Formats: sequence, structure tokens, C-alpha cells
Amino acid sequence: MTEVTIGIDIGGTNTKYGIVDRKGNVLLQDQISTQDSDEITDYVDTLSNALREALAKLNGDHNLVGIGVGAANGNYYKGTIEHATNLKWKGIIPLADMLNKPFNVPVLVTNDANAAAVGEMVYGAAKGMRDFIVITLGTGLGSGFVSNGQLINGKHGIAGELGHTTVNYAGRYCNCGKRGCLETYVSATGIKRSVYKLLADHLEPSELRGISFEDLNTKMITDAAIRGDVVARAAFEYTGRILGIKLAETVVHTDPEAIFLFGGLSLAGDLIFKPTIKHMEANLMPLFRGKVKILPSGLQNQSAPILGASSLVWNHLEEKGAIPA
Amino acid sequence: MTEVTIGIDIGGTNTKYGIVDRKGNVLLQDQISTQDSDEITDYVDTLSNALREALAKLNGDHNLVGIGVGAANGNYYKGTIEHATNLKWKGIIPLADMLNKPFNVPVLVTNDANAAAVGEMVYGAAKGMRDFIVITLGTGLGSGFVSNGQLINGKHGIAGELGHTTVNYAGRYCNCGKRGCLETYVSATGIKRSVYKLLADHLEPSELRGISFEDLNTKMITDAAIRGDVVARAAFEYTGRILGIKLAETVVHTDPEAIFLFGGLSLAGDLIFKPTIKHMEANLMPLFRGKVKILPSGLQNQSAPILGASSLVWNHLEEKGAIPA
Repeated sequence: MTEVTIGIDIGGTNTKYGIVDRKGNVLLQDQISTQDSDEITDYVDTLSNALREALAKLNGDHNLVGIGVGAANGNYYKGTIEHATNLKWKGIIPLADMLNKPFNVPVLVTNDANAAAVGEMVYGAAKGMRDFIVITLGTGLGSGFVSNGQLINGKHGIAGELGHTTVNYAGRYCNCGKRGCLETYVSATGIKRSVYKLLADHLEPSELRGISFEDLNTKMITDAAIRGDVVARAAFEYTGRILGIKLAETVVHTDPEAIFLFGGLSLAGDLIFKPTIKHMEANLMPLFRGKVKILPSGLQNQSAPILGASSLVWNHLEEKGAIPA
Repeated sequence: MTEVTIGIDIGGTNTKYGIVDRKGNVLLQDQISTQDSDEITDYVDTLSNALREALAKLNGDHNLVGIGVGAANGNYYKGTIEHATNLKWKGIIPLADMLNKPFNVPVLVTNDANAAAVGEMVYGAAKGMRDFIVITLGTGLGSGFVSNGQLINGKHGIAGELGHTTVNYAGRYCNCGKRGCLETYVSATGIKRSVYKLLADHLEPSELRGISFEDLNTKMITDAAIRGDVVARAAFEYTGRILGIKLAETVVHTDPEAIFLFGGLSLAGDLIFKPTIKHMEANLMPLFRGKVKILPSGLQNQSAPILGASSLVWNHLEEKGAIPA
């Protein structure tokens, strides 16, 4: 009998799900549409049926021990999704309760970045670490903090909003209502904005001058930088400098062993890691210099959000002592 | 049989110690000189003799269950004091081992601010809270972070150095080697520097114009502000603004229920709390507004450092499950 968990990643367009064993093998993976269901009850019915079918397809004996869900504005304490701007169902959705009924196993809900942090600890490059930070670089910038071997959820379940610390009080406008937030500089959207700022300020020729803001993406900027495009390279240097200076501030809070970078921008390798490390070290309090590693995530693949979500279950069962770590 | 702990607060001039019961009653308190002992072995002998005498003086049956020590640069993991600039013994001092020998009980060592945070949790205003921050406002600015009911020590035992996050990269020179650190603005020394800056920049008359930098202290600035001195009041407003803006950044890391202010500057009441709260709220990410309390420490008395140090023992025994919480 194999113990398995289900990991669910709810995005605005699609909901991806997978069945995952304790080692992080995704035994089966599929998706349904998120936006096709107008009512949350229809959505949960469709999702439950899909999960039941997936479990039935699985070879060999298996025992479902829990379901983990990663979603924007997921609240771990309440098992709810609260006022998510990327979903059509408004207000507070009691998703854990709704999924617990048909499956009768623990259902854990949290936001994407916290799920990524637990995933890194359970399956990824943070195995055995008790103090680390994961930074997810997607459309925005998410972060998850682990201290003493436990995810920091905070009093209200909203810890780890590093993307909304301030870089420049008179800086770029942010979706959160503030100005100059870290994620307006360091994210897929942030580096696009930086490219456009550099194109506006400087005269250098660049292959990116022919691409509209809407069309421009991280991959194009990365490829241009690898080909030596001076604007693309400057955009990475600028992004890494801002991230490095910010991380020099962040690490003195929780003194992590390592900071893992995850997601699109982190796939640019040295282009982003080198300036980040250089500027973090240069701005660190001397006591911390040379102590904190900046590393790529160990979960850089398509299934990472599913793995992160499923890891919530293993982590929960181990904290309860229900299974050995 | 009453279970008791010993709390020791090692300062550069004096070492204060006390015998403390589980409720935080200081049953007996005294001090020895720190600077009279040229060798660390002499110091530990003198201290051990003093502690034995104190235990012998105690009325009724008692059982010593542990010793807690708060000291600058105390390392919790190693039980050491490392390269403390305020002590004459250089290098790494294995204090926990040295005190364990004569008493044969657990000896816990940490820095003053972390001891204050545990003290707040065990005896003070953070009882029952699982997520909070303590800020100690003395000559410098220390901080201790508690998440999930546990002190965050970090990978290297140096978490919580909020005093050395940056306010202004071209700002005041700091002992740590950087510029513009928070503690150069928000501390007993910081507000003195702000008073002198204001006296230099402005023409307003002030009773503080007659006091030298060396003589000026927090109490004088507080008293002048209460009497309506415009420079003293502006110094508090400036200090609170800088602290509030910084706390708006800090809270998004760990999402605390409350932040406790401890020490000299915090005794100025509304003079420091009002601008701090106002500017924290004004600069917070909207999601966090109205959620995080800023409160005075519940341990505002002479014995606080002893209580903080002794609380390490109760906390340690409870985490081990040796005594009920």
C-alpha cells in the first residue's frame, strides 16, 4: 500500500492537479479549467470528479492521506481562499471544508509562495535545512520563510509578503496600492518595466526596441542578454542589484542558511544570480557576510506548484507525528 | 519544593543576577563587577561563588533547574559569548560549559534582545502570543522575533539584527561599519544625534542648547518634550517616523500579532508611540493595515534583563516537554 497525496494548483485560467508520493514522484497529473465554472459549488464538483477519476486510474494499491492546495490569497489557518483577484468567485471560499466532505482526508490550503517553500523543504534543495527563504519570481514576487524547520504563517496567515517591501518611496506604481514595491522591479513584470525604462533613458541600440510591452517576456530578455544585448544585460544587472540590496535587509530578520530563487527570472542563471549575490554581500551587515547562500530552487520544473501543494500534507502529517520525517 | 532558575545579565561594567520562580517573582537579586576580573576563569569563579551564596540565602526548599544568561553577542546554539566588544575577555568564551560544571544544570546563553523576547513570552505582555517582535531601545536597537511560539535564532544564531537594517544609505555612521543603520536614528544614542542635527539645522530656542552631547540623555529629551520644547518634540516625531516606516517593512516578513517596545526611549509613552503607529500604518501594505499592535513591554522594570535571562530556562524546559507550559 503506497501512501499518496494530491497537490492542486489553482490558477486563474486552469487548475492543475497531481498525485504525488512521499519522495516527490508525480504518479499522475492533469488539469481542469478554473474559469469555466461560474459557481464555486460547480467548480468543486468538477474538481472532485476529476480527482476521483485520477485516483481510480492509479496502478497498484494506494491510500490517499491528504490534499494540499496552493492558491493566491490562500489562508492556511482557515483553509480558505480570501478575496482572490484572479478568480471569479468573490469573498471568502471555504475550500478546505468543501474538499474535505467528498474525500474525508485533511485538506491544507496556502498561498503559492508558501507552498513553494514547503515543497523545497520536503522534496527540493532545502531538505534538512531548518532556516531558509524561498523567493518565487513570477508575474509578481512571492516569498516563503521557514525558521526552526517550520513555515512562518504569522498571526493572520499573511507572512512573507517580501514583494511589497519598498525599494523607492517615489517609485513605480504597484497593484497593492503602494509605490516602489520590490515586485515592481524584481519579477517578470518588473524586468519588463526596467527594460522599457532603460530604452527610454539611453540611446544604445537593442533588439528589444522592436518588441511591444505586451509582447515582451522574460525569455526574450534572457535570450537577448545571452546574445550580448546591452540593454537586456543592464536590465538584469539592475534587477539583481535591487534584489541583492533588499536581501541584505531581509536576512538580518531571520538569519537563513540559504535563499532559493524559483521561477522564470531565476532560470536566467548567472545573469540574475551574479549581481544579486554581489550586491547582497556588499550591503550586508559585516556579521552576516559570507554566511548566507543564494541558490536556485531544486524544483525548477512544470510540476513544481503541484509538488509544493502536495508537500503541505506530508509536512502537516510529520508535524503531527502521524508519519516519520 | 519550589523550582527556581537563575537569570544573569552580563554588562560591560556589572553582572546582575537573580533567582526567579516560574511566575517571574525575583526572589533574590544582587550583582558583582564584570570588569574587575582580568581572566575569564577568575570571573566565573567569583560569579559561581556569588550564585552559591545567593542560593544558600534563599528561604524554604528550592530546586535549581537551570541558568540563563543574556549578554551581547551571546550565541544560543553554542552557549558562547563571541567577540563581545564590551568585555575585556577576547575571542570565544564557552560560558555555558564553564557554568555547567559547578552547577550541573542546563545553561542557556543568548543576546540581550532575544532574552527580552523570551522574557516577554514567559512572564510579560506576550503571554499566549505565538507571533510577535520585541524591540529593545537602549544605547543601540536590539530585536527578538518569535514565530510559531518559538524564538527565531536563525542558522548562525544571529537572527533579529533589525538595528542594522538601513534607513539611509548615505546616512549616519554606525559602529557596525555600515552607514544609516536604524539604530543610529532609533535608540538613546540615535535621538541624541537627532536633537543635535535639529539644533544645527534650525533656529528655534531650546533648553537643550545648553547641554553637551556627552551629558544629554533620553530622560532630559523626554522631560524637555513634556515641557513643550519644540526641538525635543521634533526629535521624538522624527524618531517615531523612522521607526514606524521601518516597522511597516518588518511586519510583512513574519506577520506578528504585536510589536513590543522596551527600554528607555519607550518610557516616553505617546511621544514615541504616536508617531511610530501613525507612520507604520501610513506606510503599510494595505493587507496589513489595522492588524499589528504596537505596545509597551510588560517588563518595564529594573529586573527585566534578569527575568529575560531566567526565562530562557523555563522556555527550554517547556520545549523539551520537561515541565508543562
